Amino acid sequence: MMQAPDRVRVIPFGTSAGRPTLNRGASALAIATDGAWVLCDCGENAQITALKAGLSLSRLDAVLITHLHGDHFNGLPGLLGTMGLEGRERPVVVLGPPGIAGVLEMLAKAGSIGTGAMPVKIIEIHEAGNLAWPLGTESFFQVAFHPLVHRVPTFGYRVSLPERPGSLDAEAAVAAGVPRGPMMADLKAGRVIELPSGERIEPGRFVGPRRRGPIVAYVLDCVPCEGAVVLGSLADVIVHESTYEHARADLAHERGHTTSVEAARIARDARAARLLLTHFSPSVEPEALAEEARAVHPGAMAASDLSPIEVGPVEVEQPLSAPTTPAG
Amino acid sequence: MMQAPDRVRVIPFGTSAGRPTLNRGASALAIATDGAWVLCDCGENAQITALKAGLSLSRLDAVLITHLHGDHFNGLPGLLGTMGLEGRERPVVVLGPPGIAGVLEMLAKAGSIGTGAMPVKIIEIHEAGNLAWPLGTESFFQVAFHPLVHRVPTFGYRVSLPERPGSLDAEAAVAAGVPRGPMMADLKAGRVIELPSGERIEPGRFVGPRRRGPIVAYVLDCVPCEGAVVLGSLADVIVHESTYEHARADLAHERGHTTSVEAARIARDARAARLLLTHFSPSVEPEALAEEARAVHPGAMAASDLSPIEVGPVEVEQPLSAPTTPAG
Repeated sequence: MMQAPDRVRVIPFGTSAGRPTLNRGASALAIATDGAWVLCDCGENAQITALKAGLSLSRLDAVLITHLHGDHFNGLPGLLGTMGLEGRERPVVVLGPPGIAGVLEMLAKAGSIGTGAMPVKIIEIHEAGNLAWPLGTESFFQVAFHPLVHRVPTFGYRVSLPERPGSLDAEAAVAAGVPRGPMMADLKAGRVIELPSGERIEPGRFVGPRRRGPIVAYVLDCVPCEGAVVLGSLADVIVHESTYEHARADLAHERGHTTSVEAARIARDARAARLLLTHFSPSVEPEALAEEARAVHPGAMAASDLSPIEVGPVEVEQPLSAPTTPAG
Repeated sequence: MMQAPDRVRVIPFGTSAGRPTLNRGASALAIATDGAWVLCDCGENAQITALKAGLSLSRLDAVLITHLHGDHFNGLPGLLGTMGLEGRERPVVVLGPPGIAGVLEMLAKAGSIGTGAMPVKIIEIHEAGNLAWPLGTESFFQVAFHPLVHRVPTFGYRVSLPERPGSLDAEAAVAAGVPRGPMMADLKAGRVIELPSGERIEPGRFVGPRRRGPIVAYVLDCVPCEGAVVLGSLADVIVHESTYEHARADLAHERGHTTSVEAARIARDARAARLLLTHFSPSVEPEALAEEARAVHPGAMAASDLSPIEVGPVEVEQPLSAPTTPAG
């Protein structure tokens, strides 16, 4: 596989809660990089919004469904059907809560989804974990998931690109006697090399630290909960539901939702760089919610349909997990 | 119930076959009159197109589904869910082929459709017949249905408004000694009256013939078949699928569809006044199909999303069935 890209675009497809409106579609959000994308939730009309965003369904690696409420799910049958009609043969992965496989199979049996020659690899998730891409569905994207607290079984997602090698100061390496060619490539890949002189060169001498890829957390729908913080930990962007303004916290919780201010507290506790609020009740003013949230987290903003957020490349190294063992 | 209106607007919501495109939505078409409408098919995003058309979901009497292929059905779960969220309590009727009740119940059980306090009266149809409105779902619309020949069980619909009394020449009646008031109303309603003088007055002397209401036939998806002619008989408009141009008749039939020219023959054989072609493959040029069709039926035209067709009031009396027995 070629080297992973180092940036993603986060493109809200639909930012309304419960039902679509003329200005805000039902929940769906694309995370796109060079030549590939994943779709988080698939509210009605997501396939048309993908066309508007210029994202080809042929390059869609996976659909990550948080839960089976219609405003997060109703666009999936049509999306899969259209990919089938387009003649796609590459498999597509669908991740979702328990029950999603049965619903999709029943719709297929009723004739509502015809996927033609395209295998649909449905993975039901039951607890926190990571997506191991099934055979034939390789992707740059790394996907982790964690349960959220909502009225029905719900999972949030953490989508990232893999680490990349640090940048190589080739001129300095040449000056120190490293010949260009395979030895230089070994050095860049993080391996210790031995010069013809017998001198051993540690890669850290000429290669900067490995750089992690961008991280986007997708947290819909839930009350404020630990899973949100886990998923959003040190993320570049946490996309968090914010169905109501903070004055209606009781209503929000009663319905299994989060307020603007609570979403900001999650993002702050997770040390996420930015917070993209979404899933707005048609009764709220999204900019007012973002204003409330910024009092807690200065990187808060309100999502708008088809207004993308650019993420990466990551400039500052932040070790996020155990150091990677150099390959080879 | 107040007197039935005498005209309808036919509003194509989506005119694409198989999958929506940027310019043509998935199959759906509204038939609207004063304060009420029915929806024929419910492809994805029909609820948003209803908003764009200015049609309130609270005034939707029924959804008539031809068959369960996704491009005719995928918008229904979201439409029902939105009506539930809006707090509607008036029942809505869903007519469709066998299997539709099971699919909707399964989606509701999975949490994808929440209809709140709104009863959904699902009626599965198995053969030709008429809709007898269930208790609590009165409507001006008269709905008949007939099987069509497609790859899966499919029904076409015939939607009409009821007959209306003929117009009364009140001045002439007064001049003949008919007093204004209840007796005049009886005359207008088609009843024989007896004047104080003992003279009997037949209503036909001062009241024109009863006028039928507008008739719209909706025929998607099928190969050319008898059901289409039955449904379209003497209709003001027959909406007929026309997936391919006539040069691709073999492909059309293989896939269970009709060509432009064949749709025109159906409309001609049915003696329908106008033919509205729809359900266009993304590979055709709809205006070229309409041109082909006009060589057979001069009233043929290509449907466009959200371009309405006005139908009625019916000027010329055409007896369509056994004469109505005057009430009373």
